[in-house]
Amino acid sequence: MRGLMMGRFQPFHLGHLELVKQILDQCDEVIIAITSAQFNYLEKDPFTAGERIEMIHNSLKEANLDLKKCFVISIENQFNIATWSSYLQSALPHFDKVYSGNDYVSMLLADSGITVVKPEFLDRKQYNATKIRSMIISDENWKESVPNAVYEFLTKIDAKNRLSVISKSDTNPTKH
Amino acid sequence: MRGLMMGRFQPFHLGHLELVKQILDQCDEVIIAITSAQFNYLEKDPFTAGERIEMIHNSLKEANLDLKKCFVISIENQFNIATWSSYLQSALPHFDKVYSGNDYVSMLLADSGITVVKPEFLDRKQYNATKIRSMIISDENWKESVPNAVYEFLTKIDAKNRLSVISKSDTNPTKH
Amino acid sequence: MRGLMMGRFQPFHLGHLELVKQILDQCDEVIIAITSAQFNYLEKDPFTAGERIEMIHNSLKEANLDLKKCFVISIENQFNIATWSSYLQSALPHFDKVYSGNDYVSMLLADSGITVVKPEFLDRKQYNATKIRSMIISDENWKESVPNAVYEFLTKIDAKNRLSVISKSDTNPTKH
Amino acid sequence: MRGLMMGRFQPFHLGHLELVKQILDQCDEVIIAITSAQFNYLEKDPFTAGERIEMIHNSLKEANLDLKKCFVISIENQFNIATWSSYLQSALPHFDKVYSGNDYVSMLLADSGITVVKPEFLDRKQYNATKIRSMIISDENWKESVPNAVYEFLTKIDAKNRLSVISKSDTNPTKH
Amino acid sequence: MRGLMMGRFQPFHLGHLELVKQILDQCDEVIIAITSAQFNYLEKDPFTAGERIEMIHNSLKEANLDLKKCFVISIENQFNIATWSSYLQSALPHFDKVYSGNDYVSMLLADSGITVVKPEFLDRKQYNATKIRSMIISDENWKESVPNAVYEFLTKIDAKNRLSVISKSDTNPTKH
Amino acid sequence: MRGLMMGRFQPFHLGHLELVKQILDQCDEVIIAITSAQFNYLEKDPFTAGERIEMIHNSLKEANLDLKKCFVISIENQFNIATWSSYLQSALPHFDKVYSGNDYVSMLLADSGITVVKPEFLDRKQYNATKIRSMIISDENWKESVPNAVYEFLTKIDAKNRLSVISKSDTNPTKH
Repeated sequence: MRGLMMGRFQPFHLGHLELVKQILDQCDEVIIAITSAQFNYLEKDPFTAGERIEMIHNSLKEANLDLKKCFVISIENQFNIATWSSYLQSALPHFDKVYSGNDYVSMLLADSGITVVKPEFLDRKQYNATKIRSMIISDENWKESVPNAVYEFLTKIDAKNRLSVISKSDTNPTKH
Repeated sequence: MRGLMMGRFQPFHLGHLELVKQILDQCDEVIIAITSAQFNYLEKDPFTAGERIEMIHNSLKEANLDLKKCFVISIENQFNIATWSSYLQSALPHFDKVYSGNDYVSMLLADSGITVVKPEFLDRKQYNATKIRSMIISDENWKESVPNAVYEFLTKIDAKNRLSVISKSDTNPTKH
Repeated sequence: MRGLMMGRFQPFHLGHLELVKQILDQCDEVIIAITSAQFNYLEKDPFTAGERIEMIHNSLKEANLDLKKCFVISIENQFNIATWSSYLQSALPHFDKVYSGNDYVSMLLADSGITVVKPEFLDRKQYNATKIRSMIISDENWKESVPNAVYEFLTKIDAKNRLSVISKSDTNPTKH
Repeated sequence: MRGLMMGRFQPFHLGHLELVKQILDQCDEVIIAITSAQFNYLEKDPFTAGERIEMIHNSLKEANLDLKKCFVISIENQFNIATWSSYLQSALPHFDKVYSGNDYVSMLLADSGITVVKPEFLDRKQYNATKIRSMIISDENWKESVPNAVYEFLTKIDAKNRLSVISKSDTNPTKH
Repeated sequence: MRGLMMGRFQPFHLGHLELVKQILDQCDEVIIAITSAQFNYLEKDPFTAGERIEMIHNSLKEANLDLKKCFVISIENQFNIATWSSYLQSALPHFDKVYSGNDYVSMLLADSGITVVKPEFLDRKQYNATKIRSMIISDENWKESVPNAVYEFLTKIDAKNRLSVISKSDTNPTKH
Repeated sequence: MRGLMMGRFQPFHLGHLELVKQILDQCDEVIIAITSAQFNYLEKDPFTAGERIEMIHNSLKEANLDLKKCFVISIENQFNIATWSSYLQSALPHFDKVYSGNDYVSMLLADSGITVVKPEFLDRKQYNATKIRSMIISDENWKESVPNAVYEFLTKIDAKNRLSVISKSDTNPTKH
């Protein structure tokens, strides 16, 4: 039995890590699919796919999770949303359940025969990637919202500077 | 003489059907081109190209229009708008006139030698796709704004649920 | 019950028309899906999507088929083939059966729950689009291989010249 | 020593021309890279790549700059921004310095070994493309904000009409 | 120290597994990057990205390699090859060395500061993906060329049938 | 009066330069459009758009041509060839004539109102880019087939090594 969780993970935080653990309690293996992989250096997508993979991998190791049971995979977004469920199945190893509290996701998977499970969430107020990005910019205490491995990684790449520059810029090469 | 009308038809309503009839009064044949064909399950583009083709085809049949005189064709949007007129001509059977009240469309066709005809519109307040989608969500009386064939189709695919889920979701895989 | 047939239809010939009739014998409606819609002016894809739609529409009319029962739709090719079945279902009205003698097509639809029916073919030697294109170039008797409507259309657009120029050219802007 | 300046140049104005001169004072040659080349007939990108090239070329000639020292090149936007620096280097002749006051640009070039130079700007209030487009629509005095060659070109193509139609239209084929 | 190996892995064989071990002998961690991730059901790319991830993951587990030290990541091909090195760095976690005997790869990485290491290869005659695919079709003894986990996986998905159908088909939706 | 010539210019040779001169004899200005701009490091497209721009610019300067009269512009290939003429007109400054001996090009421009002029060619045997690339690899005397500026540029970037590596490689990331 393999469970799938998806997200942009900008960045990966303790709420995400908690969900990984929930899935590993209920399934043999977990797939962590990083969406919007083709985007980076944007306000809502500041970190590259490679950086996000590294943050997640390090967090799983640090939490002593069994990496034999974990897949960390980046996937690009699709424009024809009606084919999204089919795309997921081509881009990812076989999965039996999707963990998501998002009704939109449930709807898109409705005809696929895949079970959608609503996860028990931690406090969304604390563990919210948009809020964490904003805390990083303003030097608030975001350290307790993310795994220590993420904290170290974001410090090493000077995430504060990247987020600040992006937030002040009106340049967005992907907009028109 | 062949006349062209274009739209996203999300959904096809009585104003659209009226325009089909106007064109068939003035031309031998009509092309109904469904634009934004690659988009679906989005707030402004909830229905797939296939669903829109089916709704229109059924409406034309129901209205006893002569299908020998009608083309219903889906086309994807282009990013290089300056080539749009040329793209239309490659994607559609030959046409002599475009029925459109949109000055932007007229401008883009200005150098093509194609005549643009301003259609006589029915009451736009009643026949407006954005309004109809919102009425579907709130269970208002939208039945009288669309051909019966559209009403039946949208009921069959449970459009109310789809539109409601999309409207409540902040997930939009095509945005970044 | 709706049956689907697919092809590039470069050009639409009597073998294709025969298949339309077979499907209409066995189903209520037929969808004729024109693939590789984005390609044209290439050796294997000389005619635009619009031209192919027009040839097919005219042939169906000429054969006195009931256009109320026919959908003629152009679709672009996809690169992620594993999602092709899902793409078809988003781009086309609902269909119950696919008429195809192609094992590759059957394989791609295998998990979709869609029935694949092997059509009875006419003599493939006579009705073969590659052969017809080559006969057009060399002024052989191709008239009897296509519906009269196709013959007239291809004569009108001077297909012989287009095919000749393409066949002699080593320019192919889509190759690299 | 070759210096690079980039912009959408919608349209090219006297502030841009001044920067060309600054770069030619400090470098042997200048590359003027027109970004968002694939976009046109949009509110923020009304003019085609070809039109923008022509406006800039004419302005350089008119200013008696040595065209032997100038490259005017259009480039399309990329979606994977992390590769943008590498893309620039493949699409443009070799350059040693980038003239930009934009911190976002500096950040993206930080690891490339390319020097970023902050240009001295003229009064941004007067020389601002968004403002100039709005002045063109409302028939204000924009003539003094652009090189005469640009004024003549925009008059010849009736930019006022194009900008007005676009600004009044809610049609944007690139949005969804 | 992190080493990178790349391939299409159609399928992953014992030569590939040997290289993983070599890298883990010389580096702390290995990244296994699956290229051509967007292609599948094609003669040279029959398996989906998801299937390839699963085969590799299972093989690493079976070989008792420490999954904490392994990244298995799929990436799509790029058309602007000059940006390939930059793309790799955005799509993958940081890496210090690339293991490749391919001079083309070395050339593309030449300006990046990344070390390219020529791996010691096992017998390429035996461990060759093209040959293995052909042996699967003709029921030759391919079992000894791949990890047992790959053998089981390919048997489970009936790879023989897929490869046979593809090899007999002249349908290739990505060609034109 | 502005004349257009197009080519991949892999590399720009004396036959190309001769054509530039012919056009400048007959027109006020020349546009040199570099096609297949998005491709590079491929057997038929080894040099980047930037490198090709630089080679051409240097050759024009060296030949003492008036750069005020010359546009050197790179453009990407399009897949919908029927829109190619329209695309050219959006990507390039206005042009009145196209210089091309290619019947395919003439056909695609036939409906555009643009005059196609067959240029007088120099000896194609001597001035042929495919042959020049092969001579570079085998150290034959190719120096006399290209402008000296091209010779110097290709020597500086070690074109021999690049072409040799590409020609020996069976890696082509754009094929599938």
